[in-house]
Formats: sequence, C-alpha cells, structure tokens
Amino acid sequence: MGADSSLFGGVLARGEVAAAVADDAWLTAMLQVEAALAEVQAFTGLLDQDAADAIGLACASPRSFSVAAIGAAAAQSGDPVVPLVRALRAAVPEPAAQAVHRGASSQDVLDTAGMLVAARALRPLLADLRAAADLTARLAREHRETVMIGRAGLQRAAPTTFGLKAAGWLGGLDAARRRLDQVRAERLAVQFGGAAGTLAPFGDAGPDVVEGLATLLGLSEPAMPWHTERTRIADLAGALGAAAGAVAKVARDLTLLAQPEVDEVSTGSPAAVCALGCAAAAPGLVANLLAAMVHEHEQAAGAWHAEWRPLRELLVATGSAVSWLRAALEGLLVHPDVMRANLAKSGIGGDLSAAGLLVDRALDAYGMKRAAAAT
Amino acid sequence: MGADSSLFGGVLARGEVAAAVADDAWLTAMLQVEAALAEVQAFTGLLDQDAADAIGLACASPRSFSVAAIGAAAAQSGDPVVPLVRALRAAVPEPAAQAVHRGASSQDVLDTAGMLVAARALRPLLADLRAAADLTARLAREHRETVMIGRAGLQRAAPTTFGLKAAGWLGGLDAARRRLDQVRAERLAVQFGGAAGTLAPFGDAGPDVVEGLATLLGLSEPAMPWHTERTRIADLAGALGAAAGAVAKVARDLTLLAQPEVDEVSTGSPAAVCALGCAAAAPGLVANLLAAMVHEHEQAAGAWHAEWRPLRELLVATGSAVSWLRAALEGLLVHPDVMRANLAKSGIGGDLSAAGLLVDRALDAYGMKRAAAAT
Amino acid sequence: MGADSSLFGGVLARGEVAAAVADDAWLTAMLQVEAALAEVQAFTGLLDQDAADAIGLACASPRSFSVAAIGAAAAQSGDPVVPLVRALRAAVPEPAAQAVHRGASSQDVLDTAGMLVAARALRPLLADLRAAADLTARLAREHRETVMIGRAGLQRAAPTTFGLKAAGWLGGLDAARRRLDQVRAERLAVQFGGAAGTLAPFGDAGPDVVEGLATLLGLSEPAMPWHTERTRIADLAGALGAAAGAVAKVARDLTLLAQPEVDEVSTGSPAAVCALGCAAAAPGLVANLLAAMVHEHEQAAGAWHAEWRPLRELLVATGSAVSWLRAALEGLLVHPDVMRANLAKSGIGGDLSAAGLLVDRALDAYGMKRAAAAT
Amino acid sequence: MGADSSLFGGVLARGEVAAAVADDAWLTAMLQVEAALAEVQAFTGLLDQDAADAIGLACASPRSFSVAAIGAAAAQSGDPVVPLVRALRAAVPEPAAQAVHRGASSQDVLDTAGMLVAARALRPLLADLRAAADLTARLAREHRETVMIGRAGLQRAAPTTFGLKAAGWLGGLDAARRRLDQVRAERLAVQFGGAAGTLAPFGDAGPDVVEGLATLLGLSEPAMPWHTERTRIADLAGALGAAAGAVAKVARDLTLLAQPEVDEVSTGSPAAVCALGCAAAAPGLVANLLAAMVHEHEQAAGAWHAEWRPLRELLVATGSAVSWLRAALEGLLVHPDVMRANLAKSGIGGDLSAAGLLVDRALDAYGMKRAAAAT
Repeated sequence: MGADSSLFGGVLARGEVAAAVADDAWLTAMLQVEAALAEVQAFTGLLDQDAADAIGLACASPRSFSVAAIGAAAAQSGDPVVPLVRALRAAVPEPAAQAVHRGASSQDVLDTAGMLVAARALRPLLADLRAAADLTARLAREHRETVMIGRAGLQRAAPTTFGLKAAGWLGGLDAARRRLDQVRAERLAVQFGGAAGTLAPFGDAGPDVVEGLATLLGLSEPAMPWHTERTRIADLAGALGAAAGAVAKVARDLTLLAQPEVDEVSTGSPAAVCALGCAAAAPGLVANLLAAMVHEHEQAAGAWHAEWRPLRELLVATGSAVSWLRAALEGLLVHPDVMRANLAKSGIGGDLSAAGLLVDRALDAYGMKRAAAAT
Repeated sequence: MGADSSLFGGVLARGEVAAAVADDAWLTAMLQVEAALAEVQAFTGLLDQDAADAIGLACASPRSFSVAAIGAAAAQSGDPVVPLVRALRAAVPEPAAQAVHRGASSQDVLDTAGMLVAARALRPLLADLRAAADLTARLAREHRETVMIGRAGLQRAAPTTFGLKAAGWLGGLDAARRRLDQVRAERLAVQFGGAAGTLAPFGDAGPDVVEGLATLLGLSEPAMPWHTERTRIADLAGALGAAAGAVAKVARDLTLLAQPEVDEVSTGSPAAVCALGCAAAAPGLVANLLAAMVHEHEQAAGAWHAEWRPLRELLVATGSAVSWLRAALEGLLVHPDVMRANLAKSGIGGDLSAAGLLVDRALDAYGMKRAAAAT
Repeated sequence: MGADSSLFGGVLARGEVAAAVADDAWLTAMLQVEAALAEVQAFTGLLDQDAADAIGLACASPRSFSVAAIGAAAAQSGDPVVPLVRALRAAVPEPAAQAVHRGASSQDVLDTAGMLVAARALRPLLADLRAAADLTARLAREHRETVMIGRAGLQRAAPTTFGLKAAGWLGGLDAARRRLDQVRAERLAVQFGGAAGTLAPFGDAGPDVVEGLATLLGLSEPAMPWHTERTRIADLAGALGAAAGAVAKVARDLTLLAQPEVDEVSTGSPAAVCALGCAAAAPGLVANLLAAMVHEHEQAAGAWHAEWRPLRELLVATGSAVSWLRAALEGLLVHPDVMRANLAKSGIGGDLSAAGLLVDRALDAYGMKRAAAAT
Repeated sequence: MGADSSLFGGVLARGEVAAAVADDAWLTAMLQVEAALAEVQAFTGLLDQDAADAIGLACASPRSFSVAAIGAAAAQSGDPVVPLVRALRAAVPEPAAQAVHRGASSQDVLDTAGMLVAARALRPLLADLRAAADLTARLAREHRETVMIGRAGLQRAAPTTFGLKAAGWLGGLDAARRRLDQVRAERLAVQFGGAAGTLAPFGDAGPDVVEGLATLLGLSEPAMPWHTERTRIADLAGALGAAAGAVAKVARDLTLLAQPEVDEVSTGSPAAVCALGCAAAAPGLVANLLAAMVHEHEQAAGAWHAEWRPLRELLVATGSAVSWLRAALEGLLVHPDVMRANLAKSGIGGDLSAAGLLVDRALDAYGMKRAAAAT
C-alpha cells in the first residue's frame, strides 16, 4: 500500500514518518524552497525585499494551494512544480510574481524539497531507532548473566547469554543509526542550478544564492548542482536499507524466541511481525533507487520520476519498521528461567567468561553505563 | 509516492488502476467477500437466508464503514480485517452477527479481496495495453515501407523499416498482454481455509463453500487454500514486471527517436518520459514480492504483510506506465522524411526485402489485417 | 560466488544445472547455432552442402576452440561471438569460411545459444522439481491423518495435518513446475534477424532460414526476431523466481519444524538451510533481468550484456535450491508422535474432517493416486 | 555469468577485481585467518610457538590444498571451512593439529576471509575509480570554456559547458570513491567469536585474541562478533551500489554523446557500453545482500550462505564497470567544434558566467589544480 493508505497505514505506516512525507509536507517544503529563493534574491540584491516578503507570505500558507489541483495539472508538465509555480505567481502581485522561481528548474525545487522532507522524516525515525537501541542496551546490561542456548541454523549450538544476544542487536541498530545520522548531516544538501545546472541567470552571484539557500533551509551546501549526480540519494537509500535490515534481524529473533515451543520471550502483540513486514520492503526499494541513478545529461528522461515513489516508500517502510520494533521491545517480557531450562535441556556446556566482557565493550561503545555487577 | 498521493499521482498513477486499488476499492472487495461467505452459508444450509440477507445488506454499504477507523484499529490486530469484522458484526442483528466471517481467517478475506482488486485493476490495465498494442500494430502496417537506419549500441548498424521497429514493439506489448490475461483467467483464485487452511468448521461442506465463493465472486476455485503457497502472487508479479519492461522498451525508443538531433518522431508531451519513470518501479517491487513468498507454516510472520504494499504499487506503476505509453503513441508524429534522410546520411545500405514479410507475420500473429499493399 | 566457483559450488551450485550453463556448454551451443545456420543455408540452396558439412564438422569439435582465448578477445568486440566466428572461419576452408555466420549478428548467435543452454539447464531442474513434488505428494498421502498444530505468525493457531501441510508444499512446487514447463515449451525460441533484425541478406528466404534453425535446434519459431523484445527472458526469469520462492517456502518450514524445541521432523543435513541460501538469490537476479528489458533500438547499449550474468546465475541458484530441497525431502524423517504430542500440549482443538478431502483434491490435481484409506 | 567465467569474463570481469575474489584468493585468505589464529594463540601464551609455526607454515602453501576437493566436501558440511580445517589438521603434526581452528566457527573464518578478500578487491577498484575521477577532472579543467547544449529529457534545454558536465561526473565518481574508502577503512573488521559468538574457549583472553587477529590481518577490531549483525556487509554493498550507479551515469552520457547524430564525443570501443552492462548488475545484488541481513539467532539458516555469491558478484560487477569506464575515458575524443555547432543549431542562449566557477569549485573540492585561465 502507498504511504497514504489509511486502510493499511495502521500496519505499514506506523510512527511519524508517514506524516512527514505526506503530500502536504511535500507542498510545504516546496513552498519553503520557493520562499527561500526569493529571500536569497533579496539578500543578494537581486530583488526588492518587499517583493521577497510578498512571496514569502504566500509561501507561508500552504493550505491556500490545492494539492489535488496541482497534482492533476502535473500530468501536463510531468512534474508538480510547474503548476505550483503558476499558482504561486498568481498569488503574489507584480513585480514579485516575476521573481518567483527565478533561475530555478522544477527539479531544483523538488530535489531540495525532497531533502527537506527526508531530513524531517529522519528525525522521528532516528529517535525511534535511538530508543530501540537504548532498549536493547538495557536488555544487554540487565541480562549480562542470563544464560541461554545459542542457536546455529535453528539448531542448538553453544551456550551464550541473552545479554550478549541483545548486545548484538544493539550493535546493528547503533551502526545503522550512526550511518543514517552521518548521511543526514553530510549528504542532505540543496540541489540548485537551473535548467542545465549552470546557475544561470545569476552569474557570479550563483554560488551565493546556493549558499543562502543552504543557510535558510538548514541543508548542506554542495560544491555543485547534483541534478544528475545521485550519490546522495543512493547514500540515503543504502543507509535506510541497512537500518531496515538491522531492525528485521532483531524482529526475526524475537518472533523465533517467542515461539511457544521456545518461549524464551513474550511479545504479546503483532509488533515484531509487523516490523518484519515493513522492513521487507527495503531491498526492492533500494534496488529501484540505485537503478534510477542513471540520469541522462542535464535532466533524466524518466530516472528522476522513478525516484519519487521509492524514496518516499523507503522512508515510510523503514520508519514504520523501526517504530514497530521499538514497540516490540517496549512490550517485551524476557523469561530467564525458560532460557536457563532450555539450556539445561540441551545438555550443552561451554565457557561463558568472555560473554560479559563483550557486553561491557558493546555498552562502552554505545556510551551506556555498564551493569553494576560488571564494574 | 504512494498510490494514493494526490501530489504525485498525476504523474505516477495515471489511468484507472489507482482508483481500482484504492482504500475504498479494497474495503468494497473485503465486504463482498464477507457477503459471499454469508450467501454461501445460506446456500449450503449452514445459515438462514434471512441472516445471510442481513449480512449482505450491511456489506452492500461500504460507505457506512470508516476506512480511517478500521485502518487505525488494524495496528492492534496486525491487519484491517479484524476491525472490519467487528464493525460488520455490530451492523447486523443476531443471529446473523454470529455467522459473519464464520470459518474465515483474516488472511482468507484479505487474500480473496486482493484477488478481486487485482482482477478489477487488470481490466483498465489490459484495455490500455491492448490499445497501445493496436497503435503499434497500426504503425507497423502504415510504415511497412518506411525505411530508416537501425541502430546497435546507439550507433548506426544497418537499414530497417519503422514498420519493423513498430512490429517489434507490438510483439513485446502483445506477449505481455497475453501472459497477463492468462494470469488473470487462471491464477486469480479464491483463497479460503480458515486459521490453518483446514476449512474447519465446515467439515465435508468445506469444498462446497469454496466453490460457492468462487462462483459468486467470479474467481477461480483452487484445489486447496493457498494461504502460504504464493505462486499465484508471484505469477501476477512476474507478468506485471514483464509488461512494465515491454512498455519501457517502447518508451525508451520513443525518447531516443525524439531527440532533436535524431528527430525521427515527435512526442510533444512528457508521456514517454513519464512511462519510463513509472515502469522503473517494477523490478524492485517484483523482487519484494518474490522475496515475500517464504510464508512460514500456516500464516507468515511478516511475509504476508510484506506483500500488501508492493502488490498495490506494482499494479499502479505498471498501469500508469501503460496508460502513459498509450498517450505517447496516440500523440506520436512520425517523420518518414527524416528517417529517410538519416538513412541516406549514414551511407549504409542493405537488403530489406524480408522486413515487410516480418511485419506481415507480426500483424498475422496479432490478428490484425495486413497492409493493403501487402496482401 | 559465480556459477563456476569450485570452492563454493558444492553449496551454491548443487545438481546438474551448473554444468549445463558452464562455459563449455555455452561454447557448444554457440557452435551448434553456427552449424545449424550453415545447414539451413544448404537446405535452402544458399550454400553448397559440402561447405555446410565442413562448417558442421568444425562446429562439432568444441574442444578445438579455446574458451580462454575467445573470452579474452571478447573484450575487444564486446561479446565472445566475434572471436568465435573468427576462429571458426579459420578452421574451415574457403568457400565455406565465407558462409560462416552469414547474415547473423553476434546477438543472434548468443541469444539462440542462450535459449539452448536454458532448455538444457531446465531439464535437470525440472526433473528435480518433479522429484521434490513427488516426495511432498507422498508425504501428503502418507500423513493424511497425521494431526499436528497449525501455526500462524509462529504462534499456535489451530489443528491441521501434516498431510495437508505437505499438500500445500506440493501445490507450490507443482505450480512452479507447470509454469516453468510452459515457458520451456512456448517461450524458448530461436532469435535470428541479423544486425537490424531484418533477415538481410536472405530476402524472401529469411523466414525459411528461421524455421529451419528452429527445427534443427529444437526451439520454437518466433513470428519475428526478438533481439530487443525481451519478454521471453522476463517470462523465464519470472518462472524461475517463482520456483525459487516455492522451494524456499518448503525449506523454511522444514528448518522450523526441525528446531529441537519443535522436533516434528529431522533433516540431519544442511540441505534445507542450503536450499534457503540458494533460493535467496532469485529476487535480485529477477529484478536485474526485468530492469534489463529496456533494449535500445535494434541492439541495446548495455542491457543485453546485463542479461548474461543474472540469467546464468538465476538458473544455477534455482536449480541448486531445487536440488537441495529434493535432498532434504529424501532424507526427511517425520515424527508423527511428536506432532501429536505438540498438538495435545497446545490444548487447541478443531474440526479436521475437511483436511483429508483437501489432501485428496491436491493429489488428484497432481495426478497421484490417493491414499488407500481415502478411496 | 559468474565471476569465474572465462567466456564472458573478458566483458563482465574486466580489471583486477575478479582475480582478487577468485577461489584461490579466498583459499589464501581463509588460510591466512587460520594462521593468524595460531599466531595469536602463541602470542597470548595459549599455544607453543613451534606449533603455531607449523600451522603457519602449512597455511603459507595454499597450493597444497585442493580447491576442488574442499568445494566438493563443502556439500556435506554446508560450508568449505570444515573440509579445509580437516585438510589443514592433516597437514600439521600433533599437538599443532589440535590447535588448528581452536575456538573458531566456520563463519568466523569465512567472514574474516571475506573481509580480507573485499579489502584486496577494493584496492584495484579504488585505483580505477580514482583514475576515472582524475580523467573527468582533467576534462572539466580542459573544457571549462567549451560550450554545448544542455539536455533535459533528451531534449535541448539550455546552454552549459562540457567542463561543467565533466565536473558533474567527477562529483559522482569522487563521492562514490570517498564512501567506499570510508567503508574500507572503518567497516572491514575481523569477525570472530566461536559457535555462539562468546569467544569461548578463550575466556578473558578472548578480546586479546580478536585484537591480535585484527593487527595481524590488517583489519579493524570490532567491539563484538558480528556473525549475525550484518550492517558491515550492507554498508559495503550500499557503497558498491552507489559506485556502480555513478559509473553508469557517466557511461550513459558517453553513449548518448557518441551517437552519430550528436557526435560530440567519440569512444571508438565498446567500453562505455560494457560499463553499462556491468554496472546494471548492482541494484539486484545489493537487494539480495540487504534481504540477507536477517540472520537468525547466532548463525543464520540460509542468510549467511545467501551472501557469498552476491558479495563476490557485486565486487566483480562494480570493479569491472569502473575498469571499463576508465578505459572509455582514456580513449575519449571530445569534439568541441561539434558541441559548439550543435549549440548554435539549437538557437538557445543563456548566461554561462557561473559555469566556470562551478568547475573551479568542483576541482577545488577534488583537490586538483584549477585551469590556468581560471586562476
């Protein structure tokens, strides 16, 4: 289902990411880019401040623009920016109207808005990922000494501790979070250059315009327009895909441990199952985004359009998976006695003296205090 | 963007498929499954006809059910059928209420509804695909003798005719249509078996219940429940993926021929580019659906949920791509003089006496009359 | 690992498919295409029979051609057919040498050879798939009355029988086999048309040449060259992907049932795990093949090369998965007593009177005799 | 075709990556891991130095082990490490034989060997990527003032310069290289923990063993075993996928510019086409690796095996694509006069005064001296 489905959204679009990538969030972001462009023109002396203010005022009221009308008209132009600009120009008096969208391509606005949308969607996603990591860290600390059987190929292999298992979960979630955070900080940049990426008609002022946009919008400033250089999208996709995989690993273990025949944890809700269902979307969506990196010349013949859907869906799917995992961990009941009994039943023994050290190292790496017993 | 996005739907959800897979279409289909189940119970003597009628009456008013409320409640149960059944039971008096959903699992209802939705979505998709094939067949017939340069690796290779090129397009579109039609006719089946696929509590009447559902709903009757046997989904996915690829091939050629430096056709709209943008979604979505075939035991822990979004998106993406291609072909202007001139410029000659025969064979295979000159 | 890896091939390339798609099998097939082309030329009077015989003789000795040398030289031409033809021409006297490869493009030879290779690779694959289906059919028949707990979301849901579970496995394997068989019979066709698909320089004799090739090589005769119309590849890919998924479903259930905490079956080998490992390759490879359908004009700029690796790997991965599953089923020990005990432990009851009927229907659909008790 | 195919390797496995990931490279790496483990045991006092030396000596002769025999025997154990260890133990006298592989799981050895293999494969890949970036940087500098038409949707859009286009290529290649370099430096780590990741039987010495392995093998030291925490693999996959996409973008532009109807560059070889063909493998392989992140418990039931092939293939495909692109750029002829003429023909004008600044910024960011004219 699409990110906007109400019927399936309860399952497939849990958490706050879906709202952050919804149509109105995109519209707001697109208008913010147009407003920032006007503001920068004023700041660099290319436009009267009054005119910029008029544009800014119009852009501050996304609700006065009809998503449905713009979306329908997008079928003529091939993108929704053309009708949005038309509507925006109609909403401001001359000479401001002429300055709307000056020097920008549709893709400049949509790409930069997409970066804003991604940055905003990553906030709740990263918060949930951090919370999930915290929960696994606490499990690792609390169960540093909780012995259980370790399993290979779904067969009993050797003793381990639940703390160590949880520390492994923590490792994956935290690595995914750190990478996503890096992408957010370093790779979400303004994309601006005009029809051919030349910063015409701004001349020497071009780079200042880009710098200004970056400052106003809180995005990175790129060395160059990246209209057909899509490693930023690929990096974001890869980081989201890795996060979905790290989440699915934990959720998978939870569903296996919660089998009544194993009974080492209880989840009591469909959360882990839903996390798996959401996370499974990532590989195909990442593949689509990677395949869409081949943008022809100065603007792609299809590959740009091909990014829109999977980028949004990937944010939603990963965000929803993380949110479900957090819920699963929050509601988790651990049964150390069953773990112990299952281990005893296995008849398998082994040296566990390093397991606690590894938990400590994992907690250190994560920046969480060790268990009291371990200090 | 999701299938439900208004902002991007003008581009990414062209045509009638998106409406056929929208939330209300799903709700309608789910209620039709519940109504059919009641009707079959009455028919096989398991339920009073009055009770069945009461259920049928309630199911005939999808608008009295709130998609939003059902979707939100789905987060508790892990699927939207549980809250729908609750609402449906509340809408009919006893003893009918007890008979609502009897013997059915959530997955029975959602899977069967999904087949209905797919069958309905395929109608406009197949109509557009047929229309696009017709247009290429006409191009093949009309341009049976229009010579042009054939290109390999984007370099000039050997002479061909535009008719033969169009016949090649026809071949792909028609093969894709025939396979999709086969899947529609043979593989869209009722999925019904209850919690473990045993047809409990119907006993010996179980198979009759399934047969009745198939008859009432216009779907195939399967030998067995296929709750965790997903080759039907895979077949549908594969056929849609092939159709998207066949469409993209044509659209790609159109964008290349329409380059101003080549100028052998004019498209005058973003249709071919949008077709490419939509079709590019298919490979990743097919991959997701194939990866989701691994349903554990009698109901999957995640893989079922993982089907919902990509199946819907794949229908929309392919349907939209086909609709765009039809538009591109409808608006196509062919420039035989430029084709001739470009061929002459190449200085490359060759025997074209079989090209017309191949066009004729392609038209014969498609069932379209040959060109007058060819008879 | 690649299909040719010795180190990993024991795990990832089990069975006979890998040999059927190995370099020497490709070389043999390419030479058979060249030989058939000579033979058809003779048959249609375009070439002396003596010359055709000389070519056929040379083509019958694949070992006199160096795969390594041809492969290395392929880096100059972009495909291995050019150096192969050069070597073949050097191996036959004039005037036969001139007739070698007449009217053919590199892609004609490689595509047609690929179809031969696929047809040959499908033989052991289909045999293993049939054998695996037989084994599940026998399990279904034998365990028609073996009760067990059915599981949903890895939790206990409702009673079922092991026979019904096995019948579900059978349904997936048999559906996949039938579709693959259909693709093999209907979609593996000669691809022949020359540089631009026009059948130059054969003129009116062109279609006869294609018919002759089809007859000699045992492939279907297409209405037209399909050098840039790739639905045949897509159909094969989709069918293989569905087969891999059907296999993985069974293997997944086996690994879950064989968990020591469940203990309802024993596998005693890594076969089921290896089947899962092999089958997991399919979704991405299918995605690659679908994405590669966009062949530009009369020969693609990259998309054709992009098919070679995933088509071979997909055949090997699916073939290997099927072979492993067959081994897993051959070595399977079923523990009906544990199934019964686990069901009793669950305390869950239910009507199983239709389960046997469903097994019978599944066996009927498969064409296997029902259990004696069921007649 | 597989990485090991001779017939197709000339096209699909260009450059030095294929050799770096071949069977004997893996065998060498596996033996180096076993040797390092022995050495560390000696260093930490767990083993006599003599015994460690004996093991090291045996491991230094990979050719005394039969890849074919080990690969064949791997079918019994499910991985090639078991037969390798058996052979290694047979090759050293007691008591050294007992110490071989002490405390290690098969996955420890194969995962760590895989990291060594990846590190070695990345060397030529990164060198080729750097060389390709250099070539684009030189094009950017040299053609800072070479005007041409910029194209959107394969239609003429606005003027640009070839220098700016090349600077855009540089941006993608360099971003991909930097990310791959980061992954190489930070994420290629020893994987070691024994059957359940507990570092049994080393006790408190466990972490020292891991540290020693990292030092000896030149890999990072992880906080914990990552046997079922696969973000490292995902990060590597994502970085390779992005690199393949960045390469394909450049190759795509080259094939389009080299069309005879455009004629703005000449490539004179299949290099750009082959680069596209190789790069197209990446999206599906990345999807496979991301989907394989879901490793159950302490060792996966299939997902581990599922990594082997796509990781190797992805390295080869990306490495080959980079190598082909380098060749295409080395052989590139630029036709500034045709660019100028095509621009004039378009009749489109525009301000290009910022284009040179952007080129300078790109060169600065890359660390290459600007054009003399630009200083």
